[in-house]
Amino acid sequence: MCRWMAWHGQSLLIDELLLKPKHSLIDQSLHSTMGAEPTNGDGFGLGWYGTGDGPGLYRSISPAWADANLRHLAGHIESPLFLAHVRATSGSAVQETNCHPHLHGRWLFVHNGLINAFPTVRRELTLAVDPELFTEIQGSTDSELLFYLALTNGLEDDPLTALERTIGFVEQAAARHGIDRAIQASIGVSDGERLWAVRYSSEGNSRTLFASADAHAIKQLHPENPRLQLLRDEDRLVVSEPIADLPGAWHEIPEATALTVLADGSHELRPFRPLAS
Amino acid sequence: MCRWMAWHGQSLLIDELLLKPKHSLIDQSLHSTMGAEPTNGDGFGLGWYGTGDGPGLYRSISPAWADANLRHLAGHIESPLFLAHVRATSGSAVQETNCHPHLHGRWLFVHNGLINAFPTVRRELTLAVDPELFTEIQGSTDSELLFYLALTNGLEDDPLTALERTIGFVEQAAARHGIDRAIQASIGVSDGERLWAVRYSSEGNSRTLFASADAHAIKQLHPENPRLQLLRDEDRLVVSEPIADLPGAWHEIPEATALTVLADGSHELRPFRPLAS
Amino acid sequence: MCRWMAWHGQSLLIDELLLKPKHSLIDQSLHSTMGAEPTNGDGFGLGWYGTGDGPGLYRSISPAWADANLRHLAGHIESPLFLAHVRATSGSAVQETNCHPHLHGRWLFVHNGLINAFPTVRRELTLAVDPELFTEIQGSTDSELLFYLALTNGLEDDPLTALERTIGFVEQAAARHGIDRAIQASIGVSDGERLWAVRYSSEGNSRTLFASADAHAIKQLHPENPRLQLLRDEDRLVVSEPIADLPGAWHEIPEATALTVLADGSHELRPFRPLAS
Amino acid sequence: MCRWMAWHGQSLLIDELLLKPKHSLIDQSLHSTMGAEPTNGDGFGLGWYGTGDGPGLYRSISPAWADANLRHLAGHIESPLFLAHVRATSGSAVQETNCHPHLHGRWLFVHNGLINAFPTVRRELTLAVDPELFTEIQGSTDSELLFYLALTNGLEDDPLTALERTIGFVEQAAARHGIDRAIQASIGVSDGERLWAVRYSSEGNSRTLFASADAHAIKQLHPENPRLQLLRDEDRLVVSEPIADLPGAWHEIPEATALTVLADGSHELRPFRPLAS
Repeated sequence: MCRWMAWHGQSLLIDELLLKPKHSLIDQSLHSTMGAEPTNGDGFGLGWYGTGDGPGLYRSISPAWADANLRHLAGHIESPLFLAHVRATSGSAVQETNCHPHLHGRWLFVHNGLINAFPTVRRELTLAVDPELFTEIQGSTDSELLFYLALTNGLEDDPLTALERTIGFVEQAAARHGIDRAIQASIGVSDGERLWAVRYSSEGNSRTLFASADAHAIKQLHPENPRLQLLRDEDRLVVSEPIADLPGAWHEIPEATALTVLADGSHELRPFRPLAS
Repeated sequence: MCRWMAWHGQSLLIDELLLKPKHSLIDQSLHSTMGAEPTNGDGFGLGWYGTGDGPGLYRSISPAWADANLRHLAGHIESPLFLAHVRATSGSAVQETNCHPHLHGRWLFVHNGLINAFPTVRRELTLAVDPELFTEIQGSTDSELLFYLALTNGLEDDPLTALERTIGFVEQAAARHGIDRAIQASIGVSDGERLWAVRYSSEGNSRTLFASADAHAIKQLHPENPRLQLLRDEDRLVVSEPIADLPGAWHEIPEATALTVLADGSHELRPFRPLAS
Repeated sequence: MCRWMAWHGQSLLIDELLLKPKHSLIDQSLHSTMGAEPTNGDGFGLGWYGTGDGPGLYRSISPAWADANLRHLAGHIESPLFLAHVRATSGSAVQETNCHPHLHGRWLFVHNGLINAFPTVRRELTLAVDPELFTEIQGSTDSELLFYLALTNGLEDDPLTALERTIGFVEQAAARHGIDRAIQASIGVSDGERLWAVRYSSEGNSRTLFASADAHAIKQLHPENPRLQLLRDEDRLVVSEPIADLPGAWHEIPEATALTVLADGSHELRPFRPLAS
Repeated sequence: MCRWMAWHGQSLLIDELLLKPKHSLIDQSLHSTMGAEPTNGDGFGLGWYGTGDGPGLYRSISPAWADANLRHLAGHIESPLFLAHVRATSGSAVQETNCHPHLHGRWLFVHNGLINAFPTVRRELTLAVDPELFTEIQGSTDSELLFYLALTNGLEDDPLTALERTIGFVEQAAARHGIDRAIQASIGVSDGERLWAVRYSSEGNSRTLFASADAHAIKQLHPENPRLQLLRDEDRLVVSEPIADLPGAWHEIPEATALTVLADGSHELRPFRPLAS
């Protein structure tokens, strides 16, 4: 059911966090311990901000653990803000356009979870997408549709409210069809300056999501790495499951809660409540 | 802009027609001479009837000319009725779900051409798909959408009328948006017993389409092949462009015309006229 | 570290054994319980005999569990003799030419296991391949090299002796380099009429390998399947791990033992002893 | 038969040269005008120096013209020195390990051309590779083998002499087998500081190869691009065929000639003469 991670902080080589740590996201693609499935081998993606206009994007249908290109890219691209995702399909095709992150303009979006009974509500949700945005849809997943619904609901102006409206709308649509437990959602969103992470599920039992406690946590991950010893308190890492066995270094993001990380690294948690439309 | 072929006749190894002939469809993937583009390297597909329930399907995003699997499959699968397609994208993603043939139940569908200004009309066309069918859509092409519109319009009951309604509807939708030359369509459809081929374009200048003249044509293709010398008059081959340089062996299907090949191999041409809805 | 299966018996649709059974090989690609690794997601392959000249071959770098084409092919190809393999690389590239079965003329070859310290002995083993055969090598695995060494050592005349010579040679080469536990090998070989299966490892602790007890075993797998109820006593299935939980239905092939299944379905076990050269 | 390009100069976004120019290398993948084949659709690769240790590498079996990832990477990676290659196979498998550039340590290598009658000489050439290097070979092409022979012959100490020895050795091996016109080679090599380009063929009729005349040439390519107007005289571009129609802006590298570009951008041509071993 997917795993993801996001980094917001000083610029560093992506593999310092994506590949080198113990139980990294790439290791989770083969051996997830907290996910709904141990294997997340149905493609992956990496989106990053840095050199060039807007986010860069690399998505592949190969399992992340075996992708030679990913190792090269992660070892040769520096970024102060990136999101990575490994996918376990809940039924839709394994194709690059179904891999995360999804991209629109400067925005990146990753999702772990699912819309329950998606075939039943897919058409109704699709119709609710702004016609201007609809034409960009290239894949067939619930996740991509969530992203375009959120854009329709104002993601670029007020991301958390847009996500609350979107999930509220999904829950209402599900209710109209008599579907229980409408949505499972651990979501990461960025515009290249700020980062948002949401943990929510209709059933109140969401996929795991953690944020790094502070710079000390990252430093403890790599005492041998002089670069990481330079971490600032403002650096922040968000992960589906802790990327190394460091009790005390991670804060679990609570149920129905959203994390905002601002451009200066300051961050806050607030309740996440789906909004009726 | 794609090339395709279809065979309706006695059972034979697929590579006898798909690979071995001079200027075969696989050669056309690299060197089309009559297509809108010489290269059709954005994936391909093969659908066939024979052993097993309903049609078999093999689609790949590799160029057909380089696909080792295709050579093996074509050399080891016998079929009395198959459709093959090589793709040149007009913009949508290169992914298996965008490759032809498209499949629904016992039906296969291939398309060469395009819906003009597709991003403008895509949403309106999508909304017109039967909600039960909508949920099957996995790709993002105009062609897949045409197929689901045709199914919505009764393809399984009366294929040519369904296609006339579908193309009429596309032309009306285009007209509402002020779009000229709404559609280019060379279409092949089969239910495993019968084969239909349509050549139509709003501008009256359609992609090429040919049908084999009679068994003699095929025999002349391979005088050295004892198997093909056994061809019956009922065997029929339909191609986007002649697969070998045999003047007289091919009938060009006229503009705005549909070919029907029945289960017993008898065939007829009739005018194809888009129907207003 | 790979899992494989082979069928030698009456002709049937490949998916009756490859996909439909509980804990099928495709399920083992995601959830192997007896293999060195639970996940065998680094490509797969299917080789079969039937229609057409020599074996057909379909190999892909996608995980088997997610490959839409494999489901179609297995559901539409009938064969009396086929081998299938799911791969977990021990380091060499994920590419089709590194997937099994390997093919030469009428021969198919699958391997589960590894040559220990392969980089150290690779060159010496490569030099020992017959120069005429050397030019066919397209991949970079220990397994493909084992196949070409076996062909060099007379596989086409006397498969088991050729494999005993090959493994003896590998063990001698390893010894010259001071390498312990030279090889792990569960091997399947066929010429389209007969099937051989070998279980051997230098350390005497080989990968698992099982043969179906008799037709009753297969019938019990699918009491609901009228086709399988027609199985003959001569039908034989060989698997890396039992494809369903049926105690008593499987014979474990013992350590250092080779199984031969003849064209008429008769079979015998005999000791497998590496031969010094 | 492949096309390639190399950039040695100030750091810029790769797509400024790889994608944006008229008749760029990516356009040549679909419409080469000077190559042995118009289509170079059997995979591609990009190697670059910049951030991170040693060269970065992205190789794919997709045609370059359709690869969404390539567009993203080229638009988001800056480099002062990169090589790109589009492939048309002369027979070996389409797989990433057969795509260029090839990489060893800090070295990148691209090749357009072929070793004539490669299957005949492949084994003899393979045996001549240093055993320590042999174990790195993952593909099956003449090009990768040329690279490892050149490394064996001292590429890292004296690249041009190593290439002269390598090609001399290939010509001698071919002569021993009675093979005429042993090799066609347009080669690019870099260690991250310097760039070498060689144009040579046994028959004295080599694949085309051009170097940019001076900074003015590049500026004329993009009068509208303020960044390129900043080009220095030391910037140098090497291409299989001119990337835009600018007579006077390109120097054809003569037959049997090598170009060296030093770290400071100074460059010189000298004769290239295969050395007997």
